[in-house]
Amino acid sequence: MAAADAPVRQSSVRAHNLALVLRQVAESPNPVSRAAVASATGLTRATVSALVEDLIAGALLLEVEPAPRSGAGRPAAGLILNRAGPAALGLEINVDYLAGCVVDLTGTVRHRIVEHADQRPAGAPAALAALGELGGRLRGLAAAEGLDLVGAALAVPGLVAADGRIPVAPNLGWQDVPAAALLGATEALAGLPLTVDNEANLAALGELRAGGGARSFIHVSGEIGIGAGIVLDGVLYRGVHGWSGEIGHLPVHPDGPPCRCGGTGCLEQYAGQEAILRAAGVPTPDALDLTLPATRAALAAAGSALGIALAAVVNLLDVDTIVLGGGYAPLLPGLRGSIEDELRRRVLTADLAPVSLRPATLGADAAMRGAADSVIRAVHADPAAWLARA
Amino acid sequence: MAAADAPVRQSSVRAHNLALVLRQVAESPNPVSRAAVASATGLTRATVSALVEDLIAGALLLEVEPAPRSGAGRPAAGLILNRAGPAALGLEINVDYLAGCVVDLTGTVRHRIVEHADQRPAGAPAALAALGELGGRLRGLAAAEGLDLVGAALAVPGLVAADGRIPVAPNLGWQDVPAAALLGATEALAGLPLTVDNEANLAALGELRAGGGARSFIHVSGEIGIGAGIVLDGVLYRGVHGWSGEIGHLPVHPDGPPCRCGGTGCLEQYAGQEAILRAAGVPTPDALDLTLPATRAALAAAGSALGIALAAVVNLLDVDTIVLGGGYAPLLPGLRGSIEDELRRRVLTADLAPVSLRPATLGADAAMRGAADSVIRAVHADPAAWLARA
Repeated sequence: MAAADAPVRQSSVRAHNLALVLRQVAESPNPVSRAAVASATGLTRATVSALVEDLIAGALLLEVEPAPRSGAGRPAAGLILNRAGPAALGLEINVDYLAGCVVDLTGTVRHRIVEHADQRPAGAPAALAALGELGGRLRGLAAAEGLDLVGAALAVPGLVAADGRIPVAPNLGWQDVPAAALLGATEALAGLPLTVDNEANLAALGELRAGGGARSFIHVSGEIGIGAGIVLDGVLYRGVHGWSGEIGHLPVHPDGPPCRCGGTGCLEQYAGQEAILRAAGVPTPDALDLTLPATRAALAAAGSALGIALAAVVNLLDVDTIVLGGGYAPLLPGLRGSIEDELRRRVLTADLAPVSLRPATLGADAAMRGAADSVIRAVHADPAAWLARA
Repeated sequence: MAAADAPVRQSSVRAHNLALVLRQVAESPNPVSRAAVASATGLTRATVSALVEDLIAGALLLEVEPAPRSGAGRPAAGLILNRAGPAALGLEINVDYLAGCVVDLTGTVRHRIVEHADQRPAGAPAALAALGELGGRLRGLAAAEGLDLVGAALAVPGLVAADGRIPVAPNLGWQDVPAAALLGATEALAGLPLTVDNEANLAALGELRAGGGARSFIHVSGEIGIGAGIVLDGVLYRGVHGWSGEIGHLPVHPDGPPCRCGGTGCLEQYAGQEAILRAAGVPTPDALDLTLPATRAALAAAGSALGIALAAVVNLLDVDTIVLGGGYAPLLPGLRGSIEDELRRRVLTADLAPVSLRPATLGADAAMRGAADSVIRAVHADPAAWLARA
């Protein structure tokens, strides 16, 4: 057993060190020399060089010429992440759009497609086939640039089971949809590893990485449905089944109108996109105009309902930061006043510690960016697995 | 530096191993031999014997004679926790009672005093002085048995700051009360280390240790006020400032009657003890009689409000276990129907995964038990610190 153990241990040391070297380069804003990597990691220069050669061969790193500089001595060549190496496909289906993006190893969005259309009439198989086709176009764009897609992740506005099925996505009208299997079966995505997660979870993860450094916050995405991602002490809290954050179904006026979920008076009935558009008397979110009294009144009413639900969240979780994302981000100026009124009135600790309310850094792209980012993070966390495949 | 480091490292190894040996004995239902401890911990018999001698000298362990048994061979002497060694004082102030208990190293309650009286008229200094006097009586009872109190912990139905001050305890009418300083200044508790925590947090911790093995649950205590302790993945979630779990101030009917907190329609206005007694037309909780229609109606109404708030909790946190403690535990038969109705109607995943609702294992004593337990746990976690003091 001891002999059989040894190579396993050696290869896991190499995997650990590959990730360590890659992280040093990824976290440096400028090209970084092998010597600097050795010094920062405590590895020998010979070890670093061997690992760097592997990472260059696997298209994860590039060595670039230093900028010319005055003075004595030949400056060392510098390492950077390879922008033409592995990349990730982030996909999102929502009630009224399909979207996707290609993100490279540096986290840069290289391609992005958003197609607005109501996804409810077509049903799940047709909608996922259309998303697969959209993903195929992105895959073609990536291939034309020499980018190598390592995987795809799908963001869905619904509950996600461990096997990639969607037991229910109320606003899409989906019940028990095998989303991973249907999307994975589209020809355009053949051979690409695929994961599925809740869109609010992925958006919160995107915000955790892109955002303002808060360690505990709730990220609320307002689309047709309303979802939340809960980040506690820097970690996404998924809940017992992975179904946390269903803030859209918090009862804000329990005797209110019926909701698609079977409850009554849920937040979505007051602050979902359709409720806002109806109250404002306009057909699409683009037509919401903060200079119009009807829009201002609609947003004040939605903000009040949001504030009641968020007061419940803050009283329960003692988070001090609320991030409004998705369709809410651009509407925050119209929502803020009534949200803050309710928080002031209903949060037990309002006088002791202010709650900060801010728009999401990534806006409406947060979920698909978070999806692509989850794939890129996996490469950063375990480059050895990527090298073994490449 | 290396020479100065060495003794620190040695003493921390000893501290670690003392805790390891103590845990082996604590977790065994029967007396356990030194040889068994050595075998379970991987320490040598000589090391275990030296550590055991220290733990015996510090009154943490006792060596007992084995029960006579048939067959060959002299059975080894067995180690058990010393029930006459260090013990902890758990104290609780609530709106209508003062309480305290002495818990020994095995977690057994050795003495317990509960005094029912409205604590609001006297004000904080007088109430805490009375609690100090109650603690002094328990200290005397403990001393008479040879128990050595190592510390006290106080459970308070309010927000607790890091320095043991209470910024606000709405139902006691307290504002900015230096609870740790006031209680610590009472003559009866002189010299006893004292910590202060929120009663709902301590009750949830008590339940986590005594309870049914759930790793993620919400423990709801119903007294005059209603507080919750949130346990996620086996860890108490305290929030950014330590103020999580204020479920009593979740707005269940936002346009409802005003609450002491400044909000309106908070859960406490519908499901707090005073609301239940008023609706049932009885003066005290003892008089609630589940065979009377007025009591049944009062509990059904309270259960409905509780169910609305708990549906919000489950939609948000995806916990699958709700534990009702404090005054709610004995009332659960009258509350359950309407709570479960609301959960079924309002929890998005109600059809996919049932939510379990059960009474607390520790009942109304959970907070003071959790308080005493927090002191005992500290001894178990670091017996070396206790030995250094003893």
